[in-house]
Amino acid sequence: MPTIGEIGEPALIRIFAGGGAPPGPSVLAPNGDDAFAFLPAPGDAVVATTDSLVERVHFLLDGPPRLCSRPEEIGRKLMRVNLSDLAAMGSTPESVLLSVHAPLTLPVAVAEGLARGIFLEAEAHGVTIGGGNVTRTDGPLVLAATLLGRARPEQLLLKSGAAVGDALFVTGTLGEARAGLLLAQDPRELSALGVSAADAEQVLSRLKLGQEAVRAGVALARAGLLHAAADISDGLGRDLRRMLEPAGLGASITGATIPISSATARVAAALGLDPLHLALEGGEDYELLLALPPDREAELRETLGAVNVACARVGTVVAGSGFRLNSGEALHLGFDHFAG
Amino acid sequence: MPTIGEIGEPALIRIFAGGGAPPGPSVLAPNGDDAFAFLPAPGDAVVATTDSLVERVHFLLDGPPRLCSRPEEIGRKLMRVNLSDLAAMGSTPESVLLSVHAPLTLPVAVAEGLARGIFLEAEAHGVTIGGGNVTRTDGPLVLAATLLGRARPEQLLLKSGAAVGDALFVTGTLGEARAGLLLAQDPRELSALGVSAADAEQVLSRLKLGQEAVRAGVALARAGLLHAAADISDGLGRDLRRMLEPAGLGASITGATIPISSATARVAAALGLDPLHLALEGGEDYELLLALPPDREAELRETLGAVNVACARVGTVVAGSGFRLNSGEALHLGFDHFAG
Repeated sequence: MPTIGEIGEPALIRIFAGGGAPPGPSVLAPNGDDAFAFLPAPGDAVVATTDSLVERVHFLLDGPPRLCSRPEEIGRKLMRVNLSDLAAMGSTPESVLLSVHAPLTLPVAVAEGLARGIFLEAEAHGVTIGGGNVTRTDGPLVLAATLLGRARPEQLLLKSGAAVGDALFVTGTLGEARAGLLLAQDPRELSALGVSAADAEQVLSRLKLGQEAVRAGVALARAGLLHAAADISDGLGRDLRRMLEPAGLGASITGATIPISSATARVAAALGLDPLHLALEGGEDYELLLALPPDREAELRETLGAVNVACARVGTVVAGSGFRLNSGEALHLGFDHFAG
Repeated sequence: MPTIGEIGEPALIRIFAGGGAPPGPSVLAPNGDDAFAFLPAPGDAVVATTDSLVERVHFLLDGPPRLCSRPEEIGRKLMRVNLSDLAAMGSTPESVLLSVHAPLTLPVAVAEGLARGIFLEAEAHGVTIGGGNVTRTDGPLVLAATLLGRARPEQLLLKSGAAVGDALFVTGTLGEARAGLLLAQDPRELSALGVSAADAEQVLSRLKLGQEAVRAGVALARAGLLHAAADISDGLGRDLRRMLEPAGLGASITGATIPISSATARVAAALGLDPLHLALEGGEDYELLLALPPDREAELRETLGAVNVACARVGTVVAGSGFRLNSGEALHLGFDHFAG
């Protein structure tokens, strides 16, 4: 099995340059020049985000199949964690720059699998591979991507702007990726846990690939209903705080309305856990948190329904920086990327 | 000495967000939102590049002082390797996204030093810290930056476009970073080598910080003299091939006119090396390689003289894909990032 050290840098660059959406007429300097260059449409804002996946922190190469471990899954997830950030801005993704830091012993087949996963998501979202960089490391595989997108400036979904009395909505379901992680870490067989193969597949797939909120974000940007939006990557509790605390605001959350999939609920029950805690504290859901005037709820449901995205009202923005469940219990913080 | 694992993710993010040029009126979503957003000036192209520095590959933390080892130097070099790519496009840098992959044991003081170096270069070039990402790793410190800049589309300096008969110029001097690297790796004392402290300082500083070609690139873009431009990061030989081979072109290089600093020449002599080989094969010089019609040489010299950048004619573009020194010797390839 040849390694990337054997095929050399130019061949490795070609692997990661060999897919994605073809460059459109706005691309002025394609992949291979000193930098990527494009001409934004008149009046368009440019939106940029960067996010990384690190071996043994975010994925295991050749790890157990319950975890994100197949190269193609890892490539897809690298794109999705970045697509999620653009979605939360209401931005349409356009191009990506890749930084691959890889040990020379990495099999070429792994690099090709990573690239296939990246290309799959890139092609699904019309994203061109604008360029990037490969370098060797003597440590774990580190994958960084910078995703560039466009948005109309007046339609940008910012994290700031929520107001007292705003309704708080979330898209999709929460806690599923955390349920997947806890299931993946449990040494017991599914049959011993009483978890069905279908439920396991659903929560593990969510853990491996996250959620793709691009259609929802773009539809919401066009609709112009929102005061604020953020992605939910570190747990609803933490992402609520990030949205509201800088403005001195808090939230009253109705635990019973937090959307939890049946699979998540059943897996949580099998593991002896409260699914509400998974939803509040679990990271990697990659759904959207939305704040809007409560009288626009019908329009919100119509907008998201048109792109087949579910949503649920989870609470209300309140004055002061407290975060409370309707039970009166204080909300916990979410996922800490630095927890050892 | 506190570590980044002790202060946690939000505090670490604050360290890397605490400097750079203040965001201008074009910034629509500053650092801290789900993504960075800005409104380009009407008709401006956006130029984007990404490059990384990896511990033990590009720098040594707490390494010998002859190598890039001080956190502030590492931060500065991270910016400079990216500034170099934008310079080679004729683009004015505007903002940067940072990806920091760090072990939890990294001292906070090191993170602060890295940030200081990044901010120093960012402020010198009017670059705003647009955002980024921090994540833990159990391996070496990996720093990735994506630099965004602007350019007039018609002024972009592309790598393609050179024509038979074009004069080939380089800015500054070549081989100095390689002379610095070889000096740094030599176990002997400077006095035993017969290398002066001033010469050592010059070649080691070039190794540590590279060369900053932003003013040259922007001036050249405005002047509109060039057929093609590229940065010289992997050695003149290799970067010549990258510019010319895709178009089926080659070059005739006049070895005697390749610009080599006196310090490089003296250090090479002390190490028993041919300085011309350092210039042709040595990477990390971060100068610019330029192709232009020979009758525009006077304008080129005037343009670069106005920004205090030296240049030298090193050869001519020829038909066919051969690369020859005037001695008839075939040119060698340059630096391979994947050489183990």
